[in-house]
This record gives sequence, structure tokens and C-alpha cells, in this order.
Amino acid sequence: MSTEQDDREQQLVDRVVASFEAAPDPRLKEVMQALTRHLHAFVREVRLTESEWQQAIGFLTATGHATDQRRQEFILLSDVLGISMQTVTVNNQAYADATEATVFGPFFVDGSPRIEHGGDISFGASGRPCWVEGSVTDTAGEPVAGARIEVWEADEDGFYDVQYGDDRTAARGHLFSDDAGHYRFWAIEPTPYPIPHDGPVGELLNATGRSPMRASHLHFMVEAPSLRTLVTHIFVRGDTLLDRDSVFGVRDSLVKDFQTQPPGTPTPDGRDLAGGAWSRVRFDIVLAPAP
Amino acid sequence: MSTEQDDREQQLVDRVVASFEAAPDPRLKEVMQALTRHLHAFVREVRLTESEWQQAIGFLTATGHATDQRRQEFILLSDVLGISMQTVTVNNQAYADATEATVFGPFFVDGSPRIEHGGDISFGASGRPCWVEGSVTDTAGEPVAGARIEVWEADEDGFYDVQYGDDRTAARGHLFSDDAGHYRFWAIEPTPYPIPHDGPVGELLNATGRSPMRASHLHFMVEAPSLRTLVTHIFVRGDTLLDRDSVFGVRDSLVKDFQTQPPGTPTPDGRDLAGGAWSRVRFDIVLAPAP
Ligand SMILES: [Cu+2]
Ligand SMILES: [Fe+3]
Ligand SMILES: [Fe+3]
Repeated sequence: MSTEQDDREQQLVDRVVASFEAAPDPRLKEVMQALTRHLHAFVREVRLTESEWQQAIGFLTATGHATDQRRQEFILLSDVLGISMQTVTVNNQAYADATEATVFGPFFVDGSPRIEHGGDISFGASGRPCWVEGSVTDTAGEPVAGARIEVWEADEDGFYDVQYGDDRTAARGHLFSDDAGHYRFWAIEPTPYPIPHDGPVGELLNATGRSPMRASHLHFMVEAPSLRTLVTHIFVRGDTLLDRDSVFGVRDSLVKDFQTQPPGTPTPDGRDLAGGAWSRVRFDIVLAPAP
Repeated sequence: MSTEQDDREQQLVDRVVASFEAAPDPRLKEVMQALTRHLHAFVREVRLTESEWQQAIGFLTATGHATDQRRQEFILLSDVLGISMQTVTVNNQAYADATEATVFGPFFVDGSPRIEHGGDISFGASGRPCWVEGSVTDTAGEPVAGARIEVWEADEDGFYDVQYGDDRTAARGHLFSDDAGHYRFWAIEPTPYPIPHDGPVGELLNATGRSPMRASHLHFMVEAPSLRTLVTHIFVRGDTLLDRDSVFGVRDSLVKDFQTQPPGTPTPDGRDLAGGAWSRVRFDIVLAPAP
């Protein structure tokens, strides 16, 4: 590329950056100037053609039109570009051995049922019973009593309760850690499910040879006074989708051993599963100090 | 930032980049991988907060909903970030002394009236008459005969004909360079006008202290066989908006001297302006070889 061409491109970047110089809000100025620099660097690096620019405008337009009260295609786009996960990562700084965070996802619902220790959050959702237990501690290793532990997951068919549209509440619930910081409950073993892929984002995944599937996971949100709220998942070791989760939510430290128990194995709390198979997993949660 | 934190962020970028590795179209792969790298670099650099991410999703959603058959808010967004102009710049490489290109804009209409040399493209549009003349040559300095020169502009009130919604055709037309490569016609002196600013993009301009105004300009599109089609504007030297054109279309080389003629000054072609003031401008056009 000629110096003249390079100068023209750089001068343009400088002008756009300068246009935000007088923004009254210093943070907005910083964000817009950085966005300008990175977007221009992208266009210059790939030498974006006019027809590719048209395609990009068309894609954003279609994404806008696919978005309504019930569907958020821009969040989906952010998800499949790993931007949602990067935002989570940036806002949950690594701190000692605090448990890693991951994406919140669209299926959290306020006001889930409270269960007691050893209770069952499935409420009739289909799936293999899974005993989940662990502890909640702070980064000094001190047990955290009374931490609010919220859990939610898809059923065996890959659907959350809210996706059935019949007002059922299932496969979600919350409990509190006991005085020793321990918790235990019955859930169902997580199964994979696709993100909505019948819109523009699905077309993008398809065109780039990517899968819309999410690796199997169980959502957790853990809250306790003076500690950083943790929003995370646990994943199933051995799941073939672990290294191609469509929204990049997997962290190695969040992959857990779900141990399948042969049919008839006695359950930890004596629950009678009529001789059916079940599994168990341990998830010890470490909370960072509140920021 | 800790190494651990930096590793987590970089590992995520690497995973997203790798997810596009199997894209069947190598160009799509290249574009998506570069987009991923620059967007993640942006999020990491500004340490985007979760609420800023929410705002960004809300902004894109509003931009999508403002876009319909008649209004393209995403193009407007691309325009005010200088992305449209950068795309034009990248696709019209500097070549010897070839005239610089600038943005096309939304007001071109196919099938404009043809005028003869010395004819008037205003067709009744309000504004001070302006004599426009110049030559069309290639980069070897050879005259280009028969080049198709299309021109269009806003009227004195800052409106293009199509904005009146009454089917009028005014302030647009085309002519062909003569055998010596020269051209001349009457137009009206350009005036500034705002881009549409009653939507999300207008709010962004407002929040960042930017003006929606475009510097005064006259649009040109010049086509000739074997030569690169030129889409450009000429701007008015002395216009106070030159260094804050809302879409960054201004290039120094495109700023021209519009010389105001005192009322009563004889016109170049003897046209009787009833003693009114007029102006004149010269624009010599140099076309690069077709790419
Ligand atoms: Cu960048
Ligand atoms: Fe989920
Ligand atoms: Fe214009």
C-alpha cells in the first residue's frame, strides 16, 4: 500500500476519533473513540469490499427485524461472537481461587421455588436424577453459611420450563447453604440444547460451519453478603460439545465429573429411585470478595 | 491485571477465532476472525461494563427498529462512525493524481434528466445559480471525451427533490464531457443540511456533542470506459462545517473555491440572471484506470 493511501485511511480514523473529543461524558468519549479505532482497524485489515459492507448492513437490518419482545437476536449475536462471555470475563476479574463466572443466559426466572437440603429442583422435569452437593467458601477457605444458591437447567429434551409456554415451573429452584457452608439437592443430569438458530444468527453459524448447540450445563447463581455474586454453570466432563459450545461459556475449571451410578446403587439420602440409574456431582464454590 | 486474568481473556479470543476455522468460505472465515479479534480487543481495552453492554444491545435494538423500507438507520450509524467513508477509501486506492472518492449518500436517483453543455440541472430548485466547469482527464493527462457526469444536490433549504415526496425532479441531472474532455453546466450553490437525527443515531450524536450537519456539497458520479468510476463530492472552501462533516466525507483535495460574483456580473454563457448574484467553481476531474 502506498504511503498516500495509508495516510488517507489514518487521517480518516483521526478525524472520527477527534469528532468525539468534545463529548461531555468522558466515559462515553473513551468508549466511542476506542470503538472507532477498532472498527476502522477491522475495515482496513480485511480491506472490506463495498458488497461486503452491504451484506453487513443487510445482516444487521435482518437481526434488528428478528428482534422483538420475545426474541433478542442482538444478544444472540453477541453470544456467538463470544462478546457476552468476554464482557462477563472482564467484569469478574480472576481473584485467588474464586470460582469462574460464565454467561447468564436467557432462561433465568425470578421467584423460583425454595427447596430444603436434599430437596428436588426437578419438579417433574424429565431426566436422569442427579445428586448435586458441595460447599460454599470464601477465598480464605472460610465456610459461607446462608449463601443463596439458585439453580436452573433444561430438561432431558433440551427445553427450559418457560419454553413450553404453559406456566409450568420445573428444573429450577433455590436453597441456602447450611451452617457449615454445605449444600445438597437433587436435580437432573444436564443435556445439550441449541440456541435459537432459525434467524440471521443461525444463518451465520450455518455459513461458517458452526453448531448452534450449547454444551450440557447446570446454571448456578450464588449470592452472599460482602461477597461477589457468582453467575456460572457447571459442565459435564466427557461432553463432546465442550470445545464447541456455541456461546463460549465453557471454562476448564467448570467442567465437573458427573459420576453415573449403576441402577440400584443406594442414594445418599435414601431416596427410592425404583432401581433406576442416577448420577452425582460435586461442585465446591469459592466466592471472591465483593468488588 | 493479573496474568491469570489476561490468559482467561486471551484464551476466550482464541477459542472464538478457532470456532471459525472450519468455515467453508475462506473469505468469510478471514472477515469473521478479524472482526472477532477487533471486537474483543475493544471490550478488553475499555473494560466494558455489563450495563454498558446492555446499553449497546438496547442501542442496536432501537437502531433495528428505526430501520424500515424508507429509512436505513444502520447505514446512518456506519456513516457517523466514518465506516462508510473508510470503506470507500479502502476501495478507491490512491492512484497518481486521480480525484479522491467520497461517500455515495442516500439521495442518488437513477434516470436523472440529461442536460446539454451549459444547461441547468436546477429545474426550479431554489438557490443561488452556480456555474460549474472543468475537465475530465485520465492520470496521464489525456482528455476523456464522452465521460458520463452525473450531479445531484440539495436545494437552498437543504432538501433533495426526493425528500418533498411530490415526484418532482430537481437539482439533479447528467451530461457528457465534450471532445476536449470539458464540461460546463449551471447548478445551484450547495447548502448544508442535516442527516436524519430524530432516531437512535441522532441521540448518539447529541450525547457526544456532535452536529448532524453535513458540510455543503455537490455530488458527482463520473463514468467512462476502462476508467474507475468516481463517486465524489465537491465542497465549498470557507464552509465552517468542513472540519465537522457528520459523515466524514470531506477530503482536502475536494474543497473548491466557489467564487461569488457581484450582482450584474456577466455570465459565462450570456444567461440573463436579472441582475442577481451568482457564483462559479472549477472542478477538474482525473480518473484512475479501472481496477
Ligand atoms: Cu482492533
Ligand atoms: Fe442454559
Ligand atoms: Fe448529499
